Amino acid sequence: MKGAGARAILDTLRDAGVDLIFTCPGSTEAAILDASSEYERPRTILTTHESIAVAAADGYARATGKPTVAYLHANVGLANGIAHLHCAQLANSPVVILNGTKSTVIANRGGFTTAPYPAEYVRQHVKSDRIALRSDALAEEVSRALRIASTEPAGPVYLGLPQDLVETDAAVPVRVAQSFPQPIARPSAEATAAAAALFAHAKRLVFVAGSELARNKASDAFIALADRLDAVVLLEDRRTIADSGVPASAPRYAGTYAPEHPAIAACDVLFFAGMPSPMEFEPSKKALVPTAAIVHASTDALAIGKVVPVDVGLVGSTAAMLADLSAALADVAVNADRAAFRNEAVAAHTERSRAARTRARKGENVEPIVVSALMAVLAEELPDDCIIVGDPVTSGAELIETVIGDSNRAYHTTSGGSLGWGMAAAIGFALAEPQKRIVSVIGDGVFQFGIQTLWTAASLGLPITFVVVNNASYAAVRAAIKRYRRSSAGPFPASDIAGIDIAMVARGFGALAFSVKNLRELPAALAAAGTHAGPCVIDVHTDSNDTGPA
Amino acid sequence: MKGAGARAILDTLRDAGVDLIFTCPGSTEAAILDASSEYERPRTILTTHESIAVAAADGYARATGKPTVAYLHANVGLANGIAHLHCAQLANSPVVILNGTKSTVIANRGGFTTAPYPAEYVRQHVKSDRIALRSDALAEEVSRALRIASTEPAGPVYLGLPQDLVETDAAVPVRVAQSFPQPIARPSAEATAAAAALFAHAKRLVFVAGSELARNKASDAFIALADRLDAVVLLEDRRTIADSGVPASAPRYAGTYAPEHPAIAACDVLFFAGMPSPMEFEPSKKALVPTAAIVHASTDALAIGKVVPVDVGLVGSTAAMLADLSAALADVAVNADRAAFRNEAVAAHTERSRAARTRARKGENVEPIVVSALMAVLAEELPDDCIIVGDPVTSGAELIETVIGDSNRAYHTTSGGSLGWGMAAAIGFALAEPQKRIVSVIGDGVFQFGIQTLWTAASLGLPITFVVVNNASYAAVRAAIKRYRRSSAGPFPASDIAGIDIAMVARGFGALAFSVKNLRELPAALAAAGTHAGPCVIDVHTDSNDTGPA
Repeated sequence: MKGAGARAILDTLRDAGVDLIFTCPGSTEAAILDASSEYERPRTILTTHESIAVAAADGYARATGKPTVAYLHANVGLANGIAHLHCAQLANSPVVILNGTKSTVIANRGGFTTAPYPAEYVRQHVKSDRIALRSDALAEEVSRALRIASTEPAGPVYLGLPQDLVETDAAVPVRVAQSFPQPIARPSAEATAAAAALFAHAKRLVFVAGSELARNKASDAFIALADRLDAVVLLEDRRTIADSGVPASAPRYAGTYAPEHPAIAACDVLFFAGMPSPMEFEPSKKALVPTAAIVHASTDALAIGKVVPVDVGLVGSTAAMLADLSAALADVAVNADRAAFRNEAVAAHTERSRAARTRARKGENVEPIVVSALMAVLAEELPDDCIIVGDPVTSGAELIETVIGDSNRAYHTTSGGSLGWGMAAAIGFALAEPQKRIVSVIGDGVFQFGIQTLWTAASLGLPITFVVVNNASYAAVRAAIKRYRRSSAGPFPASDIAGIDIAMVARGFGALAFSVKNLRELPAALAAAGTHAGPCVIDVHTDSNDTGPA
Repeated sequence: MKGAGARAILDTLRDAGVDLIFTCPGSTEAAILDASSEYERPRTILTTHESIAVAAADGYARATGKPTVAYLHANVGLANGIAHLHCAQLANSPVVILNGTKSTVIANRGGFTTAPYPAEYVRQHVKSDRIALRSDALAEEVSRALRIASTEPAGPVYLGLPQDLVETDAAVPVRVAQSFPQPIARPSAEATAAAAALFAHAKRLVFVAGSELARNKASDAFIALADRLDAVVLLEDRRTIADSGVPASAPRYAGTYAPEHPAIAACDVLFFAGMPSPMEFEPSKKALVPTAAIVHASTDALAIGKVVPVDVGLVGSTAAMLADLSAALADVAVNADRAAFRNEAVAAHTERSRAARTRARKGENVEPIVVSALMAVLAEELPDDCIIVGDPVTSGAELIETVIGDSNRAYHTTSGGSLGWGMAAAIGFALAEPQKRIVSVIGDGVFQFGIQTLWTAASLGLPITFVVVNNASYAAVRAAIKRYRRSSAGPFPASDIAGIDIAMVARGFGALAFSVKNLRELPAALAAAGTHAGPCVIDVHTDSNDTGPA
């Protein structure tokens, strides 16, 4: 039957519950595209650059927990997806890269857009990197890729699909499980008991909510355990966070993790719940963790103690681990020390937030716009249940401290440092959560990296609000030059990126767009974006000298 | 001394004659950028995406023959440069990738924007992929990278430069040769004699001018030998061509190589002079070469006979090889058969060109615009000595047949299939040849891949003319679906990329721009572009159904 190979791939994806295939196709995708018009699910979403396909798939996979496909063309298309794949890997996001490679007839001859070792492009970012060898195994290969990507610790998988195999008309057996069994591991009884003992005897206890809580829908169990123990709750360090593990509106919330956070400096027991080991931007002169006893839980055994030593490691399913801890601590007594410590930490956080808002408000009528004031207006104007996708580089800390603040907003970002991720990932969140307001906060450098996002967002009519923190520079580069020089004086070569009219470019892509030079104009622009049936870009011109932490 | 490491790198590049460093920097480039403001040469050119840096370096390296640097940031910046690096590799272009990696202190800890094996991203596209291990060897490492990239067969090289090594303040010995000795190899006497014997006795002789002739400045020697032997001259196959080896205005020129070219089908001896073995787009149903005796010359021994067997292989320096052949054939007699064959081939080519121009002119007032008519107007309006940078995908054959035609125009393109190359490479040609008109002919899909080119071109005021063949579709995908279906009927999913106002986007980037819907408007737009002191984008709306060869 014509298209048997392509149909076997699409049948396998559909039966496994895959909703979307993001692609930027080439000639190797002819058979899949030809068959795709007969499938309501998986739906094929066109992007105009492979980087967009990968980050959009990452966003959708994070929002739904489902493996999501980026179907990339030949060696060049695959190469264009690598940087954002690194982001999906760090977020344990089950992005399945299907790579349409050229026919096996010409691959080893160096035919057009072939590479001798395509899997080597992505090997260090995926859990598996096979290339299909037989057309009669296409369904089996796709099914295997989906199972490996979904199994915790979840993560990206690569599967090469040579054109001649996909174009087979011979019957391909499809024998796929309707859903994959998720093997549930739990920590040993000894490790659970050791962690419970530390928690029970702690006097100054801090729980850090990691991204795994969001991925594994374990936020409520985490919050319940923190309640019972009266632990201070923090969000994961902004260097490693992918997804907010709990809403910042959670009881006992006292800000984001940082070694210099007063509660971290003072705590005696620290629980890293479902997150990586700390990640350094540059070699740190200060300790990354306090001298407290540390319990580190993760679905990824190798993440535990990766950078800093820990006292107790808990490996296993996030939900099962929290259930075990909850059972072990069922009878824990109220502890006055912990209550006092928690009280103080939350009160101090509230006071810091209040003071920051007051400072920021003072800047609200200043021109050029300062970032802290911009974030304060966003915090005030955006709905409390919107989804914030963050990729603003040097403004990242202020985004999370102010716009997430103590709101109910979900936060998604990348620790991968791949510019443009936050624009394209917003497509995935918008498709997964059409009832939510999606706000992507980005830098002006990022805008040029994620620019093709606008084509897909406009063509699908996705009502994403893009807020550009436009300081007309590579602020991170300037900050690095300042650190290197130990001085703010002198020239900053190769960091001035002024000269682009972002609003005009956005309109050219079919987006609604505003150029904002005074924050008084921002509320109306946000309101217009909120009712527009397509993407809106709000280009906020901020002070070029306000380029974030040195 | 502050900045000793960075200065050693810049001194080494300057002393070796490197003119330009294209970069899209990050924090790892702080020391290099800080030092760079003291150097007039190499000049640092800012791009706003790494893909632009790599292709621009490729263009400059091809135009000048000099190794040219793309300085890429960390693992994500390197990843973004891979697809165009593949193009530089296929063109044997000495692009030197300097990759600012994170400090050795945090690299193995999985610090921010690290990858465990950065060199694996690019290994299959470079001649060498070292990572510097010691700060006192920085100059030596850079010097070695330059020598390897420049040595024939030339090609890209990768060098990782960890941030802590580059930021050393300790003295770094710089002991670089002022220029690299280019070892000159020549084919064995036996091989030269065998080739000369075939040429001397040929009755129907065809010389195909390969891209190496341009790179090694051997066009005149090639033309002189073709004159002496009265050989038909063709340009390299459009599937493999990187740079036009001779101008199409050369005597005896009869079009581009294709297995179905009448002179190729009929010749008895064929000379592939300085080019790769044929490259297949898809498995070919027809023979890639005729049954003629084949002499294949290249600086790359492994290119000879790579896909099709040859009778005589000549490996060595292009110029030396041509000199040897010229000496061996000094006394060759005039051959009436060859003269008649050449006469007929050139006359037939002239007639085909005339007929094509006549057909194309008939389409000049047709709306929507057809590609052949667009190319005819470009052929007529553009100066005879301009540089054409081609990346129009399905319109590639018509571009070379008509706009190169039998003109004196230089032609540069990629056989790498990495969309966007032709926009960014034009930056390199414009910087290398400021006295020449640079015209980049691209597709609308390509425009979105190379879009950040406009920022650098506008900020430098580079007078590049970008002509967009805008069929509002991924025409190559549609053509592939037609081939696959063996039918033009039915839907073409994921190939409609209408909806972007390319002229408005270009204006947003600071370019002059025109939207052309009737070819009568094109001459004025080209004239305005020719006098504008910056980039100009001419968006030509062509028939969406005129999507190139099926």
